[in-house]
Amino acid sequence: MKKYLLILCLFALVAPAFAQEALFSGTDLVSPEINADGTVTFRYSNPKAVKVEITGDFLPNVKVKTPFGEQESAGKAVLKEEKGVWTYTTSVLAPELYTYKFIVDGQETLDPNNVYMCRDIASYTNIFIIEKEAGDKGDLYSVNDVPHGNVAKVWYWSQALQINRRMTVYTPAGYEDSKEKLPVLYLLHGAGGDEDAWPTLGRAAQIMDNLIAMGKVKKMIVVMTNGNPNCEAAPGEWSAGMYKPSFMGHTVGGKAPISTMQAHFPDVVNYVEKHYRTLTGKKNRAICGLSMGGGHSFMISRDYPDMFNYVGLFSAAIALDQTGEALTMDNKKIDSKTEEQLKTLFAKKPALYWIAIGNTDFLYQNNADYRKYLDSKGYNYEYVETDGGHIWRNWRIYLTTFAQRLFK
Amino acid sequence: MKKYLLILCLFALVAPAFAQEALFSGTDLVSPEINADGTVTFRYSNPKAVKVEITGDFLPNVKVKTPFGEQESAGKAVLKEEKGVWTYTTSVLAPELYTYKFIVDGQETLDPNNVYMCRDIASYTNIFIIEKEAGDKGDLYSVNDVPHGNVAKVWYWSQALQINRRMTVYTPAGYEDSKEKLPVLYLLHGAGGDEDAWPTLGRAAQIMDNLIAMGKVKKMIVVMTNGNPNCEAAPGEWSAGMYKPSFMGHTVGGKAPISTMQAHFPDVVNYVEKHYRTLTGKKNRAICGLSMGGGHSFMISRDYPDMFNYVGLFSAAIALDQTGEALTMDNKKIDSKTEEQLKTLFAKKPALYWIAIGNTDFLYQNNADYRKYLDSKGYNYEYVETDGGHIWRNWRIYLTTFAQRLFK
Repeated sequence: MKKYLLILCLFALVAPAFAQEALFSGTDLVSPEINADGTVTFRYSNPKAVKVEITGDFLPNVKVKTPFGEQESAGKAVLKEEKGVWTYTTSVLAPELYTYKFIVDGQETLDPNNVYMCRDIASYTNIFIIEKEAGDKGDLYSVNDVPHGNVAKVWYWSQALQINRRMTVYTPAGYEDSKEKLPVLYLLHGAGGDEDAWPTLGRAAQIMDNLIAMGKVKKMIVVMTNGNPNCEAAPGEWSAGMYKPSFMGHTVGGKAPISTMQAHFPDVVNYVEKHYRTLTGKKNRAICGLSMGGGHSFMISRDYPDMFNYVGLFSAAIALDQTGEALTMDNKKIDSKTEEQLKTLFAKKPALYWIAIGNTDFLYQNNADYRKYLDSKGYNYEYVETDGGHIWRNWRIYLTTFAQRLFK
Repeated sequence: MKKYLLILCLFALVAPAFAQEALFSGTDLVSPEINADGTVTFRYSNPKAVKVEITGDFLPNVKVKTPFGEQESAGKAVLKEEKGVWTYTTSVLAPELYTYKFIVDGQETLDPNNVYMCRDIASYTNIFIIEKEAGDKGDLYSVNDVPHGNVAKVWYWSQALQINRRMTVYTPAGYEDSKEKLPVLYLLHGAGGDEDAWPTLGRAAQIMDNLIAMGKVKKMIVVMTNGNPNCEAAPGEWSAGMYKPSFMGHTVGGKAPISTMQAHFPDVVNYVEKHYRTLTGKKNRAICGLSMGGGHSFMISRDYPDMFNYVGLFSAAIALDQTGEALTMDNKKIDSKTEEQLKTLFAKKPALYWIAIGNTDFLYQNNADYRKYLDSKGYNYEYVETDGGHIWRNWRIYLTTFAQRLFK
């Protein structure tokens, strides 16, 4: 190992110069620290701060007033200071992927000792994972010592949108060394998101790796598109430059789209089936999505009744009126075209039409109205209701559950 | 466009609920703003702060004292406050990718209005790009309206290291729809880095996309490995969990490696040539790397004289003594095995053996000693010296220059 030692010694000398030229900082503090008893300690060094708080989804929600009425929001806790270092220890936390930020004298601040963070539209939150045993949520969202699928950023031409577009494609471990053809899950993000949403906050690759390794999910390709038809790719990844992302991803960074997500979707399926070793036909295709992506899944499955045998609507924004007259989330009105299309879709008996939503989701009523319509027609679907609202925590659970039902 | 309008209206109602549940913040401030005159304005809202500074590589370097003597470090500037908003406008900046952070009452803080940032080992810096005309550095580092290559995170088995490992593979635009076989560039990172370094701070995909589109670089596959032989992947991307990254990437997150980067390298080349449509043989392979990765390129080309026709050492950490006796950066001593290996390598006349370094790089003397040795033997190499030190700015220039010389 002498060669290795030599290189180590060489680089021990290099560190200080790097430290200056590469602008990097960081301290010796460990934050967050996952304690053996299942609590978590956060540490933050700032001798000049007057008040340091933490906000995160492991704290009890509080009610806050908004122009849209009272809403739930992540709670806060206050850190204690000693010798300039602020600390806070949580109660025992259940297995989960958690998000948090510090609030330093009123300013939201990332934890400088935690490089793990995800972008959610226009800002970042730090993340950490609590896992206790194999198969719990924390375990499913972690990178474990199992075979890993490859994850690629892939450009495809959309004939409908007349632009090159970027998507994320997960191919399960072993795909490259096999001749086996695989079914495909199309996994769609929500408003403000992009093709990086499911691979980051959604932990899609980890969930698929782990469930496939456990034998709970069939090997499949997972295709994560960009749901903003005016955008070629995630912010900063196309020629619109480093613009500030917005919840209204549709409206920023470029020209108006010449067509819709649903109208362009055959371009995606055709690309995937031409360039990957796929099983084709309806029974080997599934589509699901969260929020706007649930709305897209609703519309795409409605518009192409022969394309997908499995449809998953996760906290979906469903519009039963496509005439443009009912510009609300009120799903009591349905137009005749939609009626006809849904009749056709359900007559073809999809293997699974799956609706899931949290019981405090602001789209709860929107989905309840849709279920009521489906019930009135006797259309076959499954329904799952969970605690909580319009949050990634639910969408990861829905992917975990839905994926286990596919292609079996 | 009625369907589209409907969805827009639906989501206009959704925003506030998201804003609370997804923990995101962000303000309406624009920062940084690239002004028409080539200056840049930064804005930061913080009514309670006493002093807000900015540090970035667009400011003149300052000398700071370190245990290793005086070193250059990025300078600082002070922001001015008005109504709680702090601002600073730069002088006119030359085309470049710049990095910066705020310093709020002594604490380094990311710009909350700029989602564009890169991790450099254990911390993040914000980035922005100045471009003035086609072909300048800012233009080459930007995502332009040109065909884009795909970028994949790919797992391969290393027989030498007995672990699965992750690498980043760039395939140029058109690869998927062609039958053409391509040459391969192996592009290695420095100490503390990983397979995400060149694709982020290195802007490797953008540089290749742009130079290929301009006809200045041949279409090639670019393979970016992980240079820490005890690690399977970048921090957080393998089963060692969400550990705190360290400059000594070799020593964290796992067991000691059972072999070296150079000994395992044939595993990489074999995987790539088996799984991609490559031209094979020495004349279709190039290797280069920065700092530790330059050291790796030196050792790999030395150990496998028939493997690469093009070798690039970027600010390389070169060890002429592999006996383990001279554990310093002093390259005045060379052992007989290295002498023999270099004799063999240069007898085989590589098409290009290219050395580049900045004139204030702390490895300057290390490289000068190596050049002196090469000169003493009459071995053929090319040398490029630039301004500046051990910085990404130089390494992007070196990739830009080196890539244009390959496979021609």
